[in-house]
Amino acid sequence: MTRVLVLNGPNLASLGRREMTLYGTATLADVERSLRARATELGVDLRCEQSNHEGALVDLLEEEAYRAQGVVMNLGALSHTSIVLVDAVRTFPGPVIEVHISNIHAREPYRARSLTGAAALGVITGLGVHGYVLALEALVRLIETESEKQGATA
Amino acid sequence: MTRVLVLNGPNLASLGRREMTLYGTATLADVERSLRARATELGVDLRCEQSNHEGALVDLLEEEAYRAQGVVMNLGALSHTSIVLVDAVRTFPGPVIEVHISNIHAREPYRARSLTGAAALGVITGLGVHGYVLALEALVRLIETESEKQGATA
Amino acid sequence: MTRVLVLNGPNLASLGRREMTLYGTATLADVERSLRARATELGVDLRCEQSNHEGALVDLLEEEAYRAQGVVMNLGALSHTSIVLVDAVRTFPGPVIEVHISNIHAREPYRARSLTGAAALGVITGLGVHGYVLALEALVRLIETESEKQGATA
Amino acid sequence: MTRVLVLNGPNLASLGRREMTLYGTATLADVERSLRARATELGVDLRCEQSNHEGALVDLLEEEAYRAQGVVMNLGALSHTSIVLVDAVRTFPGPVIEVHISNIHAREPYRARSLTGAAALGVITGLGVHGYVLALEALVRLIETESEKQGATA
Amino acid sequence: MTRVLVLNGPNLASLGRREMTLYGTATLADVERSLRARATELGVDLRCEQSNHEGALVDLLEEEAYRAQGVVMNLGALSHTSIVLVDAVRTFPGPVIEVHISNIHAREPYRARSLTGAAALGVITGLGVHGYVLALEALVRLIETESEKQGATA
Amino acid sequence: MTRVLVLNGPNLASLGRREMTLYGTATLADVERSLRARATELGVDLRCEQSNHEGALVDLLEEEAYRAQGVVMNLGALSHTSIVLVDAVRTFPGPVIEVHISNIHAREPYRARSLTGAAALGVITGLGVHGYVLALEALVRLIETESEKQGATA
Amino acid sequence: MTRVLVLNGPNLASLGRREMTLYGTATLADVERSLRARATELGVDLRCEQSNHEGALVDLLEEEAYRAQGVVMNLGALSHTSIVLVDAVRTFPGPVIEVHISNIHAREPYRARSLTGAAALGVITGLGVHGYVLALEALVRLIETESEKQGATA
Amino acid sequence: MTRVLVLNGPNLASLGRREMTLYGTATLADVERSLRARATELGVDLRCEQSNHEGALVDLLEEEAYRAQGVVMNLGALSHTSIVLVDAVRTFPGPVIEVHISNIHAREPYRARSLTGAAALGVITGLGVHGYVLALEALVRLIETESEKQGATA
Amino acid sequence: MTRVLVLNGPNLASLGRREMTLYGTATLADVERSLRARATELGVDLRCEQSNHEGALVDLLEEEAYRAQGVVMNLGALSHTSIVLVDAVRTFPGPVIEVHISNIHAREPYRARSLTGAAALGVITGLGVHGYVLALEALVRLIETESEKQGATA
Amino acid sequence: MTRVLVLNGPNLASLGRREMTLYGTATLADVERSLRARATELGVDLRCEQSNHEGALVDLLEEEAYRAQGVVMNLGALSHTSIVLVDAVRTFPGPVIEVHISNIHAREPYRARSLTGAAALGVITGLGVHGYVLALEALVRLIETESEKQGATA
Amino acid sequence: MTRVLVLNGPNLASLGRREMTLYGTATLADVERSLRARATELGVDLRCEQSNHEGALVDLLEEEAYRAQGVVMNLGALSHTSIVLVDAVRTFPGPVIEVHISNIHAREPYRARSLTGAAALGVITGLGVHGYVLALEALVRLIETESEKQGATA
Amino acid sequence: MTRVLVLNGPNLASLGRREMTLYGTATLADVERSLRARATELGVDLRCEQSNHEGALVDLLEEEAYRAQGVVMNLGALSHTSIVLVDAVRTFPGPVIEVHISNIHAREPYRARSLTGAAALGVITGLGVHGYVLALEALVRLIETESEKQGATA
Repeated sequence: MTRVLVLNGPNLASLGRREMTLYGTATLADVERSLRARATELGVDLRCEQSNHEGALVDLLEEEAYRAQGVVMNLGALSHTSIVLVDAVRTFPGPVIEVHISNIHAREPYRARSLTGAAALGVITGLGVHGYVLALEALVRLIETESEKQGATA
Repeated sequence: MTRVLVLNGPNLASLGRREMTLYGTATLADVERSLRARATELGVDLRCEQSNHEGALVDLLEEEAYRAQGVVMNLGALSHTSIVLVDAVRTFPGPVIEVHISNIHAREPYRARSLTGAAALGVITGLGVHGYVLALEALVRLIETESEKQGATA
Repeated sequence: MTRVLVLNGPNLASLGRREMTLYGTATLADVERSLRARATELGVDLRCEQSNHEGALVDLLEEEAYRAQGVVMNLGALSHTSIVLVDAVRTFPGPVIEVHISNIHAREPYRARSLTGAAALGVITGLGVHGYVLALEALVRLIETESEKQGATA
Repeated sequence: MTRVLVLNGPNLASLGRREMTLYGTATLADVERSLRARATELGVDLRCEQSNHEGALVDLLEEEAYRAQGVVMNLGALSHTSIVLVDAVRTFPGPVIEVHISNIHAREPYRARSLTGAAALGVITGLGVHGYVLALEALVRLIETESEKQGATA
Repeated sequence: MTRVLVLNGPNLASLGRREMTLYGTATLADVERSLRARATELGVDLRCEQSNHEGALVDLLEEEAYRAQGVVMNLGALSHTSIVLVDAVRTFPGPVIEVHISNIHAREPYRARSLTGAAALGVITGLGVHGYVLALEALVRLIETESEKQGATA
Repeated sequence: MTRVLVLNGPNLASLGRREMTLYGTATLADVERSLRARATELGVDLRCEQSNHEGALVDLLEEEAYRAQGVVMNLGALSHTSIVLVDAVRTFPGPVIEVHISNIHAREPYRARSLTGAAALGVITGLGVHGYVLALEALVRLIETESEKQGATA
Repeated sequence: MTRVLVLNGPNLASLGRREMTLYGTATLADVERSLRARATELGVDLRCEQSNHEGALVDLLEEEAYRAQGVVMNLGALSHTSIVLVDAVRTFPGPVIEVHISNIHAREPYRARSLTGAAALGVITGLGVHGYVLALEALVRLIETESEKQGATA
Repeated sequence: MTRVLVLNGPNLASLGRREMTLYGTATLADVERSLRARATELGVDLRCEQSNHEGALVDLLEEEAYRAQGVVMNLGALSHTSIVLVDAVRTFPGPVIEVHISNIHAREPYRARSLTGAAALGVITGLGVHGYVLALEALVRLIETESEKQGATA
Repeated sequence: MTRVLVLNGPNLASLGRREMTLYGTATLADVERSLRARATELGVDLRCEQSNHEGALVDLLEEEAYRAQGVVMNLGALSHTSIVLVDAVRTFPGPVIEVHISNIHAREPYRARSLTGAAALGVITGLGVHGYVLALEALVRLIETESEKQGATA
Repeated sequence: MTRVLVLNGPNLASLGRREMTLYGTATLADVERSLRARATELGVDLRCEQSNHEGALVDLLEEEAYRAQGVVMNLGALSHTSIVLVDAVRTFPGPVIEVHISNIHAREPYRARSLTGAAALGVITGLGVHGYVLALEALVRLIETESEKQGATA
Repeated sequence: MTRVLVLNGPNLASLGRREMTLYGTATLADVERSLRARATELGVDLRCEQSNHEGALVDLLEEEAYRAQGVVMNLGALSHTSIVLVDAVRTFPGPVIEVHISNIHAREPYRARSLTGAAALGVITGLGVHGYVLALEALVRLIETESEKQGATA
Repeated sequence: MTRVLVLNGPNLASLGRREMTLYGTATLADVERSLRARATELGVDLRCEQSNHEGALVDLLEEEAYRAQGVVMNLGALSHTSIVLVDAVRTFPGPVIEVHISNIHAREPYRARSLTGAAALGVITGLGVHGYVLALEALVRLIETESEKQGATA
């Protein structure tokens, strides 16, 4: 069964209580509930984690490196500054898709650049919390296409 | 019936024949065929246009400003330099989603910054030509949610 | 009879329908009507053109190079990026005055610098659509002073 | 009766004796004479001041804040560096138009940026000493339009 | 028979009438006449085009991609800013040589950098209109050497 | 009873043992003792925490978001680089005052800029450990003024 | 008796009438009244001066160099640009504390850097006009501690 | 007996499984085994720690400040961005040598600058995992020379 | 009789009392005494002025423009920032030599660049107060050479 | 008889043995042999020199200043950094053409800028060792045209 | 027998007489004596050279390219600016280790970047003259490992 | 007897034949003749050297380090780029005065900064070849004052 890690970074535990015109009123629990519902439909095993600690996010990526086939992640402000996480994402063997709730291109200049997004396969930004579901769908599609190819050549 | 403009910019007519490790082998005709198939399922009226001319892209955005409800666009290299198109996208009254086939965050520094993406609602990048279909789905969902709200308050 | 080219660039066809707190509610037709009225008073032959195409603007400057004695131009966002138009303005033999409806010094940093304004004789910025009429008056005054001088020395 | 402050900054007392290919041969007295002539035609009360002292220019703007309805100013080289004058112009309650005799966009890079011009309503540059008269006309037109509106709503 | 596209960009139609101390007095027609004469000697089929439109230049490169074996181009000011043309040149399958009439290293800083020159095989700059002929000769030599190699291995 | 969180960041546990000509000889325990003494006089309930972990500082701000009315914080070197803490400070509903023991404007350039200070209400810098007491006094004064206003309107 | 110079720079005479959401409604007279009241309590002799002239501020610092024991200063916009005042503050023999009413870290980038603050002992910013009183208290405490030390060693 | 702290930072737990052309195939356990073997020969007591958490690395440096005489450290990507660790290294009383497995001067520009290396005594870079052993040898030599000097003067 | 203006700018009245390891112990009176002694020997009429006011320095340059034949000036920190004084120096018809007591190339980066020095004929820096005498000698030599030439051609 | 100096700079002695995918396999001896063959055809006297010493290259340019009529040069990496050679090239009285074997616009950013190329008449880059022959031909053509003109006016 | 070139660049002949707090009191002769002693132990043939001439350093690298198996080099200040030496180091076929006596990361910003270090295999910096011996040991170890591998596959 | 080294750098052998409007018509021989004449009057032993080789200039500074008491130098374009010479000048034990014939502040930006001037005691620039004589006089005065002081304390 396909296993996907959903990783949320700093300040995302405050989702729905923080800068709501920017991020909306859905809480992190709401986001994870939507993702789990869609995962069930797709037959995917989901692990959802959030941490305000850069080191803990690296620990989780290391831990799942040989268990999960892919990652959907929103590393919050660390996306713009953390070379540590860039290296951790590069170390993860499967595909990784980055999500940002707000449109990072339309905010402060230092948010337009996503270091970790450059290490990921792709980035979905500005489509609200719905972006997580889109990322999950695209990720599962990618993993399945890939394993079909490998099945065909086996 | 919802009407959506799909706008492709410079060099996208060469899709499938150009830097294929980066952009894949699907041609622009393939992309438009996938989009039309999904549009039919969603009950959406699609207009697909491509031009290598910045001015023609502005003309099309002006022309559809009061006809289409939303835009899916990939303005190619103009995304990174054209303030003219930034102004044109800002003038368009409905939601606009930008798509890039490759991951612009992972390429030359001047491609990481999307000026027109900042004027759009959101950006999907690095998910290949499948990104167009995701953008169309997200756009239609947005337009419908919006018009339902207006129906409810009417 | 003195002939003047009035050249409007990208997105100015949307004047009066776009970012109205910034640009006001007068349309391009209104601007051209005011200019023609003043031109009649001044005994000036006016050609008014608008294009969203950089290349078409260069074509027009080349075409009028030996017909019109001066140019009033608002090249929109191309003022800030187009070296092509810088070269075209430098090639035009008569005086050129640039107009901006909003105060470019008070907006995004990339709009404060006018490349084409540096190639022109002078720039009027921030005085709304009335700036076009001021520019026309100043231009005609310049052309007449110049031709009087030449008459005197003839 | 409408009252306008005309404020000239550092080195403008040397006008007509300094870098004449750039600034022409008219002296400051000539400029003020033209402005007074036009002011009489327009029924405007003019106060003309020049100072080489940044502080004195701020003093004058404070002094006239509740006496004059508008300002025509050429702050010379202070336009490009003085945040002090930026703040003073922002404090002035009526419209302010900045004039530069030469085209600041076509000179040294540090002259292309006008800090105080960004705090003003608009800027006229490169049209020689005639720019002062154009600014006075535009300013009076603005003040009258504004007071008519207020009369209409009274 | 070897076919070569000669592509001239914005403002080159004004050659011989514009900034003549910089660009000389030869017109574009003169340049094309010299090139055709040399092409006849070399047994080369030449297509000469000029456009002020970036989009039209891309259209021509696409159109000739599978017809001409090489390109001699002078993209004028677009060399310094157009990522669109960078992508178009990269898409062209054969060798491309860029020509500049004046020495771009000795002019304004923004002209020293040639974006499209970086996408080309090589650049000849500062040798006047004679540079076009040198480029044609070098290009033909390259195409012939290449096809000889392929003949030898066939 | 008013509750205030006092938050010290990385390396402040070494206070009094580290770069003493810069930071003085008072230890963190001394600082907290002075603050508690003053808090007792002011009738304020104080929670003092120190951590070298960025994530733990975010956790504490989240935890106290609905318990403390204000924050006095010295985030050490994280003030200059952590966008994560900028976002966390913005999420905190009450007033926040930042303290730096040394004068950050007089040190390395990268210390002159305080990202978290920009998200706070104000910053006290260079007044040694006494700065903490000043910040506490100012914070309590602000909270009381605010609640008096709300009492008056209740 | 301890003597303190309170120095206010350009545009502070307009306090209470200018950008009031930023600076509040207290006038400079109000600020000086609060400071004099607190000075009387602390047994301090206060000289309060304001000038829009950089040179006059230097003159005052020179004049008080051997009369006042310390300075509380708000040099307004000159804090960000005046190397002249940096040198004058460095020349003053006693401690100097800089005050800014608004939080300079949270405004335009050029206001985040305080050149004169780097030459002072410390800076209080963003705590409104109350910041002046905090600075006076901190300054008097510093002067007294210092003179006690000297008394003890005498 | 001399005691040395060996500190490895983020992502070094993945050594031997990550970007192997860059970092080689030796694991962190291999590195620590080599170091312990050499430490035994040198009669040195070694403590080896690895953490992905910046805060934990600071905690360890504080904890060993009065126990270990020196540090060999590879802080991974934190070397390039963490002012927090710069301050922690400066606080450590004994000599610190930084090691990088790959040649940081030959990689991305942001890796060429080592902030923490500037706070250390020296840096060894590009010599693979053998660099750790070289650093340990150099460190022990330094500590012994220093304590001999102190013995001689005692 | 040759007349020379000696102009000292901000903070030079504090000479001999300020940063003495940098500027030495000679006061401004000492400097002027040395200059007057040398002037008497050279048969030169000297006017020595000092002001902390940029505007007053411009006033003096304007006042002496048609009286003195040359200027020796040390504009202090204004050398590095004042475009106003750049323009005033350019307006002065005779030769101007700039002096700096300390070596401006060896201090803070913003002191290495002398804007007013670029408008002067030459600059003597780092040779202490003796630099003023050298400048006076060089200036008189220049003025005399020049007037001899004019005498010869008369 | 026309005399031309061919000057090769640092590392060009290693041609054919160094980074061969970039520079090809022809050695410097091969290049000089081709040049001499073409020179014989053109009736030109050639002096070929190579040195790794910047100073020796300047010495050679000085030595040939009044002997050779022109220079073909490839100064290697010194093209990008040596202001000394910029000055030496400017001192040479005849035309100078710079050659680069690889396309400097397509390599590291610091190689795109040619300081010495800006001092030369023109630059040929990216056309391999054949570029030397093209440069020689263009140079001889220029020298002959020039001397014909002088013959005509004699 | 393994042969190693030890190359010292500009100003290293003054070692022990120059900025001794930075570089220590050992002379270049002392350094070379230590290296020769260690080389004898390792059975290595050493050639030690020093030159103040960039060109001579390139000459030596070319000369030893096919004689020595490796290089230990300290190119002094040329490390930070010489692209010529970057190219020469890249041309050398064997491993090259760069040494700096002082810690280049802890000095002026322009010394932190080592261009030639990026072309080398690795860099040892800040460990005093002992760094040379460490580099020699590491280099010999590398050469032997490499030749063993080649022996094994022979 | 006082001994002074006069050191001229690259391209100064061409003095009087090169860019004469900038550097005048005096040759290097003329300059050295004037210096020797003045040296005889001052009782100074002069060694005059010129080289186009950076390394040779370093050699000369090393050679004279314990023979000459001071240096007058004009290092030409190397002043702006050579860190090697910065280090060599710092190593010279006596005073060094730098001369530039033209005013380096008034030329290309890269000439305004003198790296070697920052390592010297002072700089004289823009006073033509007379600057050398002024530098010699100031240098001798400094050396004598210094040795008198030492005599007095002996």
